[in-house]
Amino acid sequence: MKMDNSPARGTRDLLPAAVATRDRVLGLIQDVYRRFGYQRIETPALERIERLTGGQGGENEKLLFRVLRRGLDEQLPAGPLADLVDLGLRYDLTVPLTRFYSQYRAELPQPFRSFQFGPVWRAERPQKGRYRQFYQCDIDLLGEPSVLAEAELIEATTEALAAVGLTGTEVRLSDRRFLAALASAAGVPDEATGGFFVTVDKLDKIGWEGVERELVDGRGLPSAVVTSARDAIGALTDLPAVKVADVLADAVPALPDAVAEDLATTAACLAALPGDVRWSFDPTLVRGMGYYTGQIFEVSHPDSAGSIAGGGRYDELVGRSLGTEVPACGFSIGFERIVDLVAADAPGERVAVLFDADVPVERALAVARRLRAERGGVVSPVRRGGKFAAQLGRLESWGFTGFVPVRADDADLPDVRPLRRD
Amino acid sequence: MKMDNSPARGTRDLLPAAVATRDRVLGLIQDVYRRFGYQRIETPALERIERLTGGQGGENEKLLFRVLRRGLDEQLPAGPLADLVDLGLRYDLTVPLTRFYSQYRAELPQPFRSFQFGPVWRAERPQKGRYRQFYQCDIDLLGEPSVLAEAELIEATTEALAAVGLTGTEVRLSDRRFLAALASAAGVPDEATGGFFVTVDKLDKIGWEGVERELVDGRGLPSAVVTSARDAIGALTDLPAVKVADVLADAVPALPDAVAEDLATTAACLAALPGDVRWSFDPTLVRGMGYYTGQIFEVSHPDSAGSIAGGGRYDELVGRSLGTEVPACGFSIGFERIVDLVAADAPGERVAVLFDADVPVERALAVARRLRAERGGVVSPVRRGGKFAAQLGRLESWGFTGFVPVRADDADLPDVRPLRRD
Repeated sequence: MKMDNSPARGTRDLLPAAVATRDRVLGLIQDVYRRFGYQRIETPALERIERLTGGQGGENEKLLFRVLRRGLDEQLPAGPLADLVDLGLRYDLTVPLTRFYSQYRAELPQPFRSFQFGPVWRAERPQKGRYRQFYQCDIDLLGEPSVLAEAELIEATTEALAAVGLTGTEVRLSDRRFLAALASAAGVPDEATGGFFVTVDKLDKIGWEGVERELVDGRGLPSAVVTSARDAIGALTDLPAVKVADVLADAVPALPDAVAEDLATTAACLAALPGDVRWSFDPTLVRGMGYYTGQIFEVSHPDSAGSIAGGGRYDELVGRSLGTEVPACGFSIGFERIVDLVAADAPGERVAVLFDADVPVERALAVARRLRAERGGVVSPVRRGGKFAAQLGRLESWGFTGFVPVRADDADLPDVRPLRRD
Repeated sequence: MKMDNSPARGTRDLLPAAVATRDRVLGLIQDVYRRFGYQRIETPALERIERLTGGQGGENEKLLFRVLRRGLDEQLPAGPLADLVDLGLRYDLTVPLTRFYSQYRAELPQPFRSFQFGPVWRAERPQKGRYRQFYQCDIDLLGEPSVLAEAELIEATTEALAAVGLTGTEVRLSDRRFLAALASAAGVPDEATGGFFVTVDKLDKIGWEGVERELVDGRGLPSAVVTSARDAIGALTDLPAVKVADVLADAVPALPDAVAEDLATTAACLAALPGDVRWSFDPTLVRGMGYYTGQIFEVSHPDSAGSIAGGGRYDELVGRSLGTEVPACGFSIGFERIVDLVAADAPGERVAVLFDADVPVERALAVARRLRAERGGVVSPVRRGGKFAAQLGRLESWGFTGFVPVRADDADLPDVRPLRRD
């Protein structure tokens, strides 16, 4: 009886061709990050449930896969669900990183350049292109207070994307401190700033009309305040990159000097980059997570509707685990998105040792071994079966590029014959 | 306030040096397997709970991490625990492989050479060197009925272990069909054969005395039967490798011809291998899993108490998912064990661009960029801080091999100076 052999709802299997492309993309990214000094670390998929429900994960905490305690009775009395759960699957790599850094800080380099690549799990409603297990690819620089962190992360990430073959990318930059000053100047009360950003973050999805409606009807902000904020943001869109810090300081008089200085420094660093790294200041860029404290950035690509990478500074997050504040900044590549943008790998040479049923097994293996040693590349024995031409067709469809027929009565080894018919 | 930042009980974090060693070992193994034609596939960590509790996992099914359904009420009525669970974390890579192969068979090469590397989860009692998340490294050959599969898997795996630098390994070989014939000849009833093997598998842990006690007292086998089986096994220990098939056929007259022929073929293949692959027939080798149907094998290493790799033929397992029997054979390297056996990586060159506080950030980044381009290797900017000699000491302890001091009033870039004092 045939079972249902599909993967669990919302997850997927990766076939050899997909894995080969992913491995190549990961290798190219990792090579660049390594040269910048980022070192890969790894944490377990399971974290204690308290760590995953402390508020750091925002909306992702609602998408948690929760794991039952072991040793529970198979018949349960009535009671709170929470009593049954002690672990969960991580929904991002930032929560584990702050725990990791807090635990091992004394033995890590300062500043610490961290690279992470691994699966995360979110119980999202299954839809095309969105999976419940997907990979994240994060670099983080912990312990560096200046925008050296932001500038280096942007340089390393744009270089990594270029190495993968993604050209035409553009970096969009903003600053949470700028957004707060702008909201305050427009008359948004301090306690409403968080909600204000959450709504403005939906701008590319629901447009200004939707944003205004949500801010007025949903969040109870006065119309005049919303109009004022919209005008201020509008006036700062499509700024010439060079003078952006000066323009911002003029437009938002309450802007702290440090914000304008940081922006000027980042601008100078980006201007000095080799290649054609395009960037712009985007006053509508907010980013979803609540933990950002300074500059935030995203990378867009002409072939992708959403951003393909994003990050920012989060100076207060490590302090919640460690008890001591540590400046931190991170950048995450949307690995699943960029894998969809790159071309599939050109297959390499793959030779089939096509042996008849009466050829001794040790001879088939010996021929494969000899070809591997003499020619390099991939060599596998395959048993002769069915019509010859049909079998050659199947071999070709499976990615074999050549074959060697081995017969029991041939003492010599024929040459490798090509499978591809041009 | 400092939180508990340790990883969840029984799991562990991997620091950069550990990850580097693991990546190197994996790369060496994977290169060998690729040349033999094994292609990496990947399946999700989560499988449907029915798939993980169908009996295929043996004792591992008792160690399952079970995942709660989403959308449950936070207050639960009394009821069966099973109603709350729909998913589990995989405890091995064989269950997902048989599901994967059954789902995609039509588009996979025949035979299919599969390589898998990934974490599995078992809620074992935490103890030294045993973790609740650990990596498995499996190759499997599906669709090949002859011992070509066994011989190729043994060749590829011993070559992979040699590539990692593990010499002095020894392959031990047995056959479930031989063990069944031996048990039957000794008078073990058919229905007791499974339990008989489970007990004999403990031989290296509890010795013959323990095995005999368990077989007689625990399983109710007559003393005479147990003695007869012990004598038969004893007579077949330390056989000369060359004639092993003949000796077995003589010693166990009920041995099917196919078993002796298969063993003779595997012996001929192993004898033809280059290098010094040592092997022996081991009548006490049983292996834990119930699904093996033919030859079974393990690799031992002088520095490891347990085996470092193991596998065997499991011709009936795929049929349970697919509904059609498919011959299959697999070999799993004990990745965590062999990582403990290999030497740590020699660190490469790592240069710190040590810049004073008054050096513009864009200059620090530019120096790093220039050194990366001109010298290759790893280059990272680090801010000057504290006493100079002490900082150099810290840099060295973090793996930096050289540094370049960058001062605001120096127009030229000094040479890279070594950090290691010989």
